[in-house]
Amino acid sequence: MTRAWRSVVALSGGVGGARLMHGLSRVLDPDAITMIVNTGDDFEHWGLSVSPDLDTVMYTLADLAHEERGWGLADETFHAFERMAAYGEDAWFQLGDRDLATHLTRTRALRAGEPLHAVTARLCRALSVPCRVLPMCDGPCRTMIETREHGALPFQTWFVRHRTQPTARGVRFDGSPPPAPGVLEAIEAAELVVVGPSNPYVSIDPILSLAGVREALARRPVVAVSPIIRGEAVKGPLAAMITELAGRAPTAGAVAAHYGDLVRAMVVEAGDEGTVTGVPTLGTRTLMRTRADSARLAREVLTFAEALC
Amino acid sequence: MTRAWRSVVALSGGVGGARLMHGLSRVLDPDAITMIVNTGDDFEHWGLSVSPDLDTVMYTLADLAHEERGWGLADETFHAFERMAAYGEDAWFQLGDRDLATHLTRTRALRAGEPLHAVTARLCRALSVPCRVLPMCDGPCRTMIETREHGALPFQTWFVRHRTQPTARGVRFDGSPPPAPGVLEAIEAAELVVVGPSNPYVSIDPILSLAGVREALARRPVVAVSPIIRGEAVKGPLAAMITELAGRAPTAGAVAAHYGDLVRAMVVEAGDEGTVTGVPTLGTRTLMRTRADSARLAREVLTFAEALC
Repeated sequence: MTRAWRSVVALSGGVGGARLMHGLSRVLDPDAITMIVNTGDDFEHWGLSVSPDLDTVMYTLADLAHEERGWGLADETFHAFERMAAYGEDAWFQLGDRDLATHLTRTRALRAGEPLHAVTARLCRALSVPCRVLPMCDGPCRTMIETREHGALPFQTWFVRHRTQPTARGVRFDGSPPPAPGVLEAIEAAELVVVGPSNPYVSIDPILSLAGVREALARRPVVAVSPIIRGEAVKGPLAAMITELAGRAPTAGAVAAHYGDLVRAMVVEAGDEGTVTGVPTLGTRTLMRTRADSARLAREVLTFAEALC
Repeated sequence: MTRAWRSVVALSGGVGGARLMHGLSRVLDPDAITMIVNTGDDFEHWGLSVSPDLDTVMYTLADLAHEERGWGLADETFHAFERMAAYGEDAWFQLGDRDLATHLTRTRALRAGEPLHAVTARLCRALSVPCRVLPMCDGPCRTMIETREHGALPFQTWFVRHRTQPTARGVRFDGSPPPAPGVLEAIEAAELVVVGPSNPYVSIDPILSLAGVREALARRPVVAVSPIIRGEAVKGPLAAMITELAGRAPTAGAVAAHYGDLVRAMVVEAGDEGTVTGVPTLGTRTLMRTRADSARLAREVLTFAEALC
């Protein structure tokens, strides 16, 4: 790397964004990075406050995430879950035993009035997460998926319980809390903002929906990594969502078009460059299977971004 | 057995009472028994509603209890607990992973307005507990231990956190909810009431403190099993409590004197009969190490009680 970045902000949903964040946290001074994470997927399960994307980011950055599964901890058991199922409690969303400690700690803290960003910072310290992780907001902002079959469904109900089967006809966010303390300040101070390869509709748009975030981003150089590779989403329902919500083929270009003026450059899978118009585009290997992949992609994004800043 | 009992009520705290209950549930028609369990020890831990005696009784009756440890499930892991400790959360009271499902289910139910007796019934059904288990009350009635060193301590804080080190100078119960639905009715319909070998001060007195319970028991034949064996408590701080609170030596007779007119007969360890005055007393082996011990003692209590009813 030729440049010493002093302040980089990354926006992320779950796995893809978390892996790029992991790469950034390994190639940059950890003090130079602020991760801003989607909490639109947060929900209550078994009476516990669960923040799936925050947890994926925390566990990934702490090198504790289960890599293949894409959620939860690598070294995990499901004994409480098995008994919950035996008790007839909701069994459509699995929480591991060690993972439960995160939700118990968070739930108790929130009930006691500690804001989400504060308990997240505590959990990150305990997990030795090397860089700053902020939830996008402290207050509830809930991603709702509009479906024909079931009306509006909370994201996890649609995503996990219904396995994304009801077609998403629209997405809305219930609640408009202010961004968490530090979010706007981090963006305003950022030399570079990296939008991770996350689902634009349900992982990044919730962050963009918060008051002041779009305006702050508009003043900073923003580069986005495409979550679409050769017409397919690496994970999740994004390809079908682009078709349904944007009325176009699922391409890196469709992602770029969705972000519009917000992004100054795109990083896409090599071969997908042709789908993007209007912004400088880097083609490279964007699939991150290993930590080395994440670090290489993070380096390439930063080097590519040097020209923008 | 010569008599077919149709309605027996047993009062219990944790392990000792639970083991006698297990015996009763094996030698009687399970439909003939109602267990009334102390909830004065209930407390909130990690934001969860924990009912230690109810759980010990449920798990014991379901043949799932950890026999040596005296609490929790036999087949258990502590992965959530380990992480809670790593997060800096209270680690003085262990909850196992499978056990957590019980507390999560109970906590969610109570928060949703389901009374404790109803969620206890649901848990018992799911655990295949063969007989009826009632918490002594639905509302909070908290056993507080008066100590010189720390003032009044909630029972679990004194018992587990402080390992009963601060001398108990008194016991009081905070809250006077009505007995749970079915408690007084079960006592009134009982041919026999068995007071288990539990701590009179902190396991049985909380039940007796509830409005109408003493009066209902006074009209029924009550036999108590002594938790003191040859001057020592099988488990817990009872011997020291008798010395401090009653100002006398810890004997089966001291237990009988504490219950006074309430009990019509005592069952004590063979050799301890001489300490009891004023009521018929059966001496036998009262220590229950195995299920066979529990069943034998239950049979002996019932046979002895035939003369009273």
